Amino acid sequence: MQRILSTQLAQHIGETVTVAGWIHRRRLLKSVAFLIVRDAEGLSQVVVEEPATRTQLDELTEESVVEVTATVTRNEQAPGGVELTGPSIRVLSAVDVPLPFELHRPALSASLPTQLDHAALALRHPSRRAALQVAAAATAGFRTALSEQRFVEIQTPKIVGSSTESGASVFGIDYFGRPAYLAQSPQFYKQLMVGVFERVFEVGPVFRAEPSDTARHLAQYTSLDAEMGFVTDHRDVMAALTRTLSVMIATVAARTGVATPKVLPEIPAVSFAEALRIAGAADGEEDLAPAHERALGEWALREHDSEFLYVTGYPMRKRPFYTHPDPASPAYSNGFDLLFRGLEIVTGGQRLHRYEDYVAALAAAGEPLEPYRGYLDGFRYGMPPHGGWAIGLERFVARLLGIANVREATAFPRDLHRITP
Amino acid sequence: MQRILSTQLAQHIGETVTVAGWIHRRRLLKSVAFLIVRDAEGLSQVVVEEPATRTQLDELTEESVVEVTATVTRNEQAPGGVELTGPSIRVLSAVDVPLPFELHRPALSASLPTQLDHAALALRHPSRRAALQVAAAATAGFRTALSEQRFVEIQTPKIVGSSTESGASVFGIDYFGRPAYLAQSPQFYKQLMVGVFERVFEVGPVFRAEPSDTARHLAQYTSLDAEMGFVTDHRDVMAALTRTLSVMIATVAARTGVATPKVLPEIPAVSFAEALRIAGAADGEEDLAPAHERALGEWALREHDSEFLYVTGYPMRKRPFYTHPDPASPAYSNGFDLLFRGLEIVTGGQRLHRYEDYVAALAAAGEPLEPYRGYLDGFRYGMPPHGGWAIGLERFVARLLGIANVREATAFPRDLHRITP
Repeated sequence: MQRILSTQLAQHIGETVTVAGWIHRRRLLKSVAFLIVRDAEGLSQVVVEEPATRTQLDELTEESVVEVTATVTRNEQAPGGVELTGPSIRVLSAVDVPLPFELHRPALSASLPTQLDHAALALRHPSRRAALQVAAAATAGFRTALSEQRFVEIQTPKIVGSSTESGASVFGIDYFGRPAYLAQSPQFYKQLMVGVFERVFEVGPVFRAEPSDTARHLAQYTSLDAEMGFVTDHRDVMAALTRTLSVMIATVAARTGVATPKVLPEIPAVSFAEALRIAGAADGEEDLAPAHERALGEWALREHDSEFLYVTGYPMRKRPFYTHPDPASPAYSNGFDLLFRGLEIVTGGQRLHRYEDYVAALAAAGEPLEPYRGYLDGFRYGMPPHGGWAIGLERFVARLLGIANVREATAFPRDLHRITP
Repeated sequence: MQRILSTQLAQHIGETVTVAGWIHRRRLLKSVAFLIVRDAEGLSQVVVEEPATRTQLDELTEESVVEVTATVTRNEQAPGGVELTGPSIRVLSAVDVPLPFELHRPALSASLPTQLDHAALALRHPSRRAALQVAAAATAGFRTALSEQRFVEIQTPKIVGSSTESGASVFGIDYFGRPAYLAQSPQFYKQLMVGVFERVFEVGPVFRAEPSDTARHLAQYTSLDAEMGFVTDHRDVMAALTRTLSVMIATVAARTGVATPKVLPEIPAVSFAEALRIAGAADGEEDLAPAHERALGEWALREHDSEFLYVTGYPMRKRPFYTHPDPASPAYSNGFDLLFRGLEIVTGGQRLHRYEDYVAALAAAGEPLEPYRGYLDGFRYGMPPHGGWAIGLERFVARLLGIANVREATAFPRDLHRITP
């Protein structure tokens, strides 16, 4: 018999159907037992009165996988207004060890490390599933928005021959006996691909060996990257990002029902100098501290009713060497950050596009040219003014759902201490 | 002035417009010069008669990036029936080195190694761009088809703590001073996630350190993975794959205009034993050699008018330990390969779903349990019968386009010898 989903039961009242899923909970009363079966879409309540089935149920434990064939019966008290009566139960996979924690309570009581140790089980809890569903919806929205704006999806190497983007730490690899590194970002590749398709995007893993054991660092995270050519400056990039962000948020709302913030057609933007004033920071500061970002988030909500805020024109000294300076004020950049509820979740900007500017920028940074030679090729052969951004998916999801630790916004986190499961 | 694309010119006849792109070609005749500008969508022909502009053009070289403001004029001889006249040209980025090869000829004359050395340039050629556009379309179709079938997108770790799936080689990493490895596939993770969402998919890089220097091996390739729970056996998986494949092919056709094969609603399937007979292989063979696969491809085309063919029931000895045996004939598997024009492009099948079956399978394979402990967790806590598949994106694209070397079906290939650009 074809299995149906829990959400389809109401369409089959009076019929005999088959549902299948995990034993979410059993309630074993004296004269009757209730079996709650969980599938991908929800819960089904099964009423067990027949003695042989009751005996079978007594021996089963939570999370065992069962197939239940029964009659769909109306019952206003049951979840969804229906329950299954007169069941026969076939066990597909029995659990015969104690569970490390219970899944049927509203919140998981286990500590985060315990949840992560048993991720395959913990992720079944609605609270943990939700974050991954939001991530999937945000990613789908990202791709939809960019495809509509003529961006072409690319896949770039995660193994690179030289360790660039100095300052941040990289993971070393043994590549057929030669040293190589895990890519910290698709930055140079997406820039080169602007020369091919003008507009490109990539969704993929990036790797950071920063030994930071904080609630917002992961050794592997998912980066939502985009890069676009023929821009006037960073403001064209911000306009494309705003449009993309609004589709991401709308897709999350439509697919998951999660409460989402509004995205204004024009997200407010303040210059770095204004940002320092608003946050009450000293005039000479060269970067925004977390407390400054929080203050800016509160200000944007109060003054503009926006949970998003662009900060533009960060000092060049704090941006990577490929950043394009502001032509009117070369100590400042055509770069921006996007704050979401007072936390930076996107970094972007206009990049250098002339070979000679790269040579000068690397020289000014005291960096050798050689490790960059493969990447700089495209710039010798004609590259338009361009810019782009990178969104950290897990941070975005955590911020959207109010999750304190980014490890809860991914299925199997990797950090300084954790490499399993 | 807002830039328009080459494909929009015909809508602006008589108007002054701005186009921008790369100098694809110059034809410098005595009294007139023609400038062909290439943008993301196509070519524009610019007619230069004015002496100062001609002098400017004489000094520019191919692949320089320019912005051209001119009048759109009807000319049946020009590409698209229009040309640009009376131009003023602004140089956005000038090329001042000789190009290693020319881009304006129908085929790239440079050898593949030279193309790969200068990938940022070579990929601008229509023949190389096409493969990446097909890859993007196929990937989009893959996601569309699976989303429609209730699959949820996941992201899994690419850094793993133990080297599993014995036999194939892995890349070692220095993970904060501890040994770790690059994931060869998301196999175990996607299986664990069946316990969470029932149906999942992932598009991501996988890494193989096999020292095979052939036209069909890459050290990093893009794997289109899917896994689904509550299957009866591998035939449910094949049905989902066939549906997915037909959407992938349809999306490629719709987005790129490339000639595509038809996908029958039911792709023909032969058992491994039948396949041996058809291919004229010896009865005792345990695997299909490339020549056998080619013979099967010809047979499927001749007998079933299908460019695709499933081969099912490979011997268990040749499949990974997690493969589910055929209950009626346990020396054979509920596994399949999908051949496309006589080459395997997909491997899939039903997997084991009971913890005790994994323990027995690892023992039978002489493999220790310990490296798998993190992955086997989910199987202790209830997993439904399930199966899935993995499509090698670059092989699929190469086969679809008749590309001989898989390195031409990816932007920046990684192999035994190549790690740049």
